[in-house]
Amino acid sequence: MGCGVGPVPLALVSLVVEIIEKKCNELKCKEDLHQEPTIQIYMNDLPSNDYKLLFKDLLNLEILKRDEVVPLCLFKAVPGSFYDTLFPLNTLHFVHSSYALHWLSQEPMELYNKQGEAINKGNIYISEKSEENVAKAYLGQFQRDFTQFLKCRTKEVVSKGFMLLTTRGRQSLTNSSTWQPFELNILTNAITCLFHEGLIKEESVDKMNFPVYIASEEEIGSIIKKEGSFEIKYSNTTVNEVGSEIVDKWEKAQFLAKYIGAFSKSLISHHFGQHILHLLHHKLVYHAFQHLLHAFPTQNCAVTFLLQKR
Amino acid sequence: MGCGVGPVPLALVSLVVEIIEKKCNELKCKEDLHQEPTIQIYMNDLPSNDYKLLFKDLLNLEILKRDEVVPLCLFKAVPGSFYDTLFPLNTLHFVHSSYALHWLSQEPMELYNKQGEAINKGNIYISEKSEENVAKAYLGQFQRDFTQFLKCRTKEVVSKGFMLLTTRGRQSLTNSSTWQPFELNILTNAITCLFHEGLIKEESVDKMNFPVYIASEEEIGSIIKKEGSFEIKYSNTTVNEVGSEIVDKWEKAQFLAKYIGAFSKSLISHHFGQHILHLLHHKLVYHAFQHLLHAFPTQNCAVTFLLQKR
Repeated sequence: MGCGVGPVPLALVSLVVEIIEKKCNELKCKEDLHQEPTIQIYMNDLPSNDYKLLFKDLLNLEILKRDEVVPLCLFKAVPGSFYDTLFPLNTLHFVHSSYALHWLSQEPMELYNKQGEAINKGNIYISEKSEENVAKAYLGQFQRDFTQFLKCRTKEVVSKGFMLLTTRGRQSLTNSSTWQPFELNILTNAITCLFHEGLIKEESVDKMNFPVYIASEEEIGSIIKKEGSFEIKYSNTTVNEVGSEIVDKWEKAQFLAKYIGAFSKSLISHHFGQHILHLLHHKLVYHAFQHLLHAFPTQNCAVTFLLQKR
Repeated sequence: MGCGVGPVPLALVSLVVEIIEKKCNELKCKEDLHQEPTIQIYMNDLPSNDYKLLFKDLLNLEILKRDEVVPLCLFKAVPGSFYDTLFPLNTLHFVHSSYALHWLSQEPMELYNKQGEAINKGNIYISEKSEENVAKAYLGQFQRDFTQFLKCRTKEVVSKGFMLLTTRGRQSLTNSSTWQPFELNILTNAITCLFHEGLIKEESVDKMNFPVYIASEEEIGSIIKKEGSFEIKYSNTTVNEVGSEIVDKWEKAQFLAKYIGAFSKSLISHHFGQHILHLLHHKLVYHAFQHLLHAFPTQNCAVTFLLQKR
């Protein structure tokens, strides 16, 4: 769900094939494999994903070229939002999503007052300067979206089927009303800078609300329990340092700028125009460097849930 | 199977949805519809197909935007050759292929002698100048490929499931050893012209074997009967005039050149190089015009089979 392209979906597919192949060989040794299995792998993302590249990569996977591969692998692409129905009833055995479910279906409508004015002016996400109802609006949208995701999947997943969901997350001790991930902090500074230089309009900045919500394990757990279709078999929160292998601050700043550009590029160009991307990149490098000079954190946190359908 | 992109797959999908919608409404009137159906539509083509455009078009289809649509439509893309397994056992209710099955999986190997020399020199398909074993080689490859297609599909199609297959065809009375479709005749003339002008090498022309076979209804019928898994419920051969609405010969020649370019472009550029396409187009217009001046036929023939799995 939300597979994208590149090394992440490829590594995942290889891993799944390898595990099933190993299991098949074990069963074969015990003479317990009655029929060689067929694995159907459905790759979901929005229709705008680069499926052509994804297919080319998938069909060239090393593991599928080995002669001794037992399971037959059949790939399908499923274009559409994972907040909609994508599969017929009771057809999925295992659902996986990695770093996709923090994307909201839309920016929270509550970020505008009755007159249509933005209430989170000068910010692009929850921040220390935001009013309290900004965090409430974001959490509300996330609760609606995540519940919708569960409701769609519960129809599609077979009884006792599993879902392994990993999403960008927040540590439990953080203040939900003011916390923002360090990338969005750097991005806000870069955008503000472009505004001060007169390169983008104040109104455009005010109406930029990044459509993600970085939830804590507790917040996600409570939505799953309330929705009720899935049992939580396991959950955890992990923290890792972004670009930890890069020592040089200037080099690391450039790495961070690319990292921030990669996930924000299409939104930014849609909102401010394509022409701003090049200018923004330079500002991102500068502000990432400032961030590192001040020894501010560059941690990325992930929340993982293993769910089983009741 | 071999859906491509553009108006053809879209029209087909609209038609299928419309028919099932109508059937649902009929059953509803008779209070005979116990569960609203879900239609899963799998679009197959090679991985290099423009799936991004296909998805964009499909998800924007007018018929899916109407409020009263009864069946839920779920689209999946299936990258790969239809001469391979693409689906699990017994999962397809209806298979459709339009103008794709005349494409061979490869050029017939028998078009080279033991020394690796081309035996159909100066031609790109069966022609009046070809030796008899050229037509034999093409038919042999088609028989192997079409049989392979049937063998793959028979595993995938449910018992009593249907296949509706339309392919480019040949009228029964034509001489199978010498007949060639008019487009390939014009294309051969254009390529020969480029060779005489020193723009392409003789060896390249000799080694160009167009990987299609234009079969007759009888030839296809006999392969289906020999393979034995499907019963022929209906078959026919239709003939239509290409670009019949265009009266002006010069205008029609340009239309034909585009038509020939469209199906041959990727093969030609792969074989002779991208740079030749522009030059070839001008030669195609010239030879299409000559073809029309001589009042040679510009007919396109289609063979259709409706098959039911036994």
